[in-house]
Amino acid sequence: MLFKNVGGFFVSNFYNVLYLTGFKGLNPEEREAFAILTSEKIFLVTDGRHDLETLKVRNPTLEIRALTAKENLVFHLKKIIKEEKIRSLGFESEDLKFLEFKRLKKALKQVRLRPAERYLLKKREIKSADEIEKIRRACEIADRCLREIIKTIKIGQTEGKIAKRIEFWFKENNYDVSFYPIVAVDENSAIPHYDTKANGKNKIKKGSIILIDYGAKVRDYCSDITRVLFMKGASPEALNIYSKLLKCQEETIKSIGRGIKTKEIDQKCRKLLRAAKLPDFPHSTGHGVGLEVHEDPKISRKAKEKVRPGQVFTVEPGVYIPKKFGFRIEDTLVIDKDSKPRILTQFPKKPPLL
Amino acid sequence: MLFKNVGGFFVSNFYNVLYLTGFKGLNPEEREAFAILTSEKIFLVTDGRHDLETLKVRNPTLEIRALTAKENLVFHLKKIIKEEKIRSLGFESEDLKFLEFKRLKKALKQVRLRPAERYLLKKREIKSADEIEKIRRACEIADRCLREIIKTIKIGQTEGKIAKRIEFWFKENNYDVSFYPIVAVDENSAIPHYDTKANGKNKIKKGSIILIDYGAKVRDYCSDITRVLFMKGASPEALNIYSKLLKCQEETIKSIGRGIKTKEIDQKCRKLLRAAKLPDFPHSTGHGVGLEVHEDPKISRKAKEKVRPGQVFTVEPGVYIPKKFGFRIEDTLVIDKDSKPRILTQFPKKPPLL
Repeated sequence: MLFKNVGGFFVSNFYNVLYLTGFKGLNPEEREAFAILTSEKIFLVTDGRHDLETLKVRNPTLEIRALTAKENLVFHLKKIIKEEKIRSLGFESEDLKFLEFKRLKKALKQVRLRPAERYLLKKREIKSADEIEKIRRACEIADRCLREIIKTIKIGQTEGKIAKRIEFWFKENNYDVSFYPIVAVDENSAIPHYDTKANGKNKIKKGSIILIDYGAKVRDYCSDITRVLFMKGASPEALNIYSKLLKCQEETIKSIGRGIKTKEIDQKCRKLLRAAKLPDFPHSTGHGVGLEVHEDPKISRKAKEKVRPGQVFTVEPGVYIPKKFGFRIEDTLVIDKDSKPRILTQFPKKPPLL
Repeated sequence: MLFKNVGGFFVSNFYNVLYLTGFKGLNPEEREAFAILTSEKIFLVTDGRHDLETLKVRNPTLEIRALTAKENLVFHLKKIIKEEKIRSLGFESEDLKFLEFKRLKKALKQVRLRPAERYLLKKREIKSADEIEKIRRACEIADRCLREIIKTIKIGQTEGKIAKRIEFWFKENNYDVSFYPIVAVDENSAIPHYDTKANGKNKIKKGSIILIDYGAKVRDYCSDITRVLFMKGASPEALNIYSKLLKCQEETIKSIGRGIKTKEIDQKCRKLLRAAKLPDFPHSTGHGVGLEVHEDPKISRKAKEKVRPGQVFTVEPGVYIPKKFGFRIEDTLVIDKDSKPRILTQFPKKPPLL
């Protein structure tokens, strides 16, 4: 039994299918594969357009069932439910669409469909040593990228050009970005979700502030880091606020330890900002990182769970002064066996003026 | 009233929000924005991390409601339902998650939630002149890309290297790919969904067959095209099968006209292949193209609707001989006011031997 009287679990989420089976579709937005988990087996249901032979070689214990025009998802689900004597089938309520649920409900009369919220997402929260090593490597590669990019930054360059250079650096080195880089200069750095791809026209000037929020994807695992760079001539006011924010970020990370709840990290961080007379920021203090760049745990007001060894998440407070400038300082860290944080993103948080 | 007693329509799909409001989030996999459509107004609900000022300038009639920690989605929905006197609220049953539905149902007691399947997806199927021009441009740019890339293809190059060169060509020219290119050489071309990014190690030899399935994304609109290139020394058997497939593809396109159902295009195509003694292919004959590279209409066994002016879709039959080679020939075309097809992808289907 998997959990509370559930004998089988139907997996539709792209990253959960990848996590369980190693199968990666071409597009996370399309339903290319499903998994069915029992206490003893993992089934993968996908179609023959994919390279199933390679998958079988890589993962011989996986039971692969091929979708065809006649043998559709419902056909295979019925078959597996019968073979495995499943009476109650859990499903991912945060992932399955309303229409998909209705169709399964209509077709699978012989089984009770049981919504299970974030079941695998919660499992994915605690990383194995192998996963931590992959994330550490993604952090290391992101650090290396910025060390290279920083050498090429010059007055007159646009945000868009720098973002593209970061993207190309990863791809040329056979890695990928974990999301399209945010490069925001001066007043645009005050927009936390600035869309550099759609806009990206601001140019670097003497004294400019350059916020860079980016990450690597290496062997399917992500990193996430934000750094702020200053051009020579940056205002003392800005540098002063930045120093204060950095202190808050570092103090927040230091406060993490056994028994602390994730919401307490969020509260602690905002309290430190208040004490430093800095304004509050309109986003959470952090988020988990793994196969996805945003996953559990959430480091926010609402997150009640305690910090646990094996979690990997970011700490990223910000200060945003509309139409002027903004800062965010973000590290990816892992919680060790003593529940203490180890920072994986090593790029200096006090870089020299460029 | 929008449709069948529905006074308001709740939009969660990323591309539908973009279609209605011009707002594009950073990641289609995350819920960054929602729209509410009434017969007179369009509301956009998103948070202040995004650049809402630019959006207001671009689209002054849009009613923007900002999400905050206190004023969440439910808060805004309740407010809009009250203001607009909405009694029945449609939602996208193919997009809204089971859990999202349950939460809305619990929170919005004053309104009837009404599942509406593919409501906006069906509207998006018929393209405006402006949309057709954008897709035409995306097709033209994809053609240009292949003309450039073809000059650089040489014996010894890997699939992965060519795919990356296609990707970089688009990005260097300030466009994007509509999906990661499939470049499949020799036996890999027999795998319709070959994952070039994950594999991509096959090298081009004398006589190689190179299948390239790719597309451009230009101003948010996609193109989709597949071409097969032959290196000098390709086997007469392969060239012969290719010629037969090409004839079938061209005949299929010619058969499109007023009153034909999309499933009849699919049937016609398979019938032509059978008559030419070619094996059937394990995918549909085509799919719509627009803001997404796969959208309505489907050109498949199950698709019952008639072809209509303004639709844009692909016709892409294939022949796959496992462990040997495979072909697919794909064009993107638009249905004109007389219900006749106009092919938008112009790259020659009989390129010279390389």
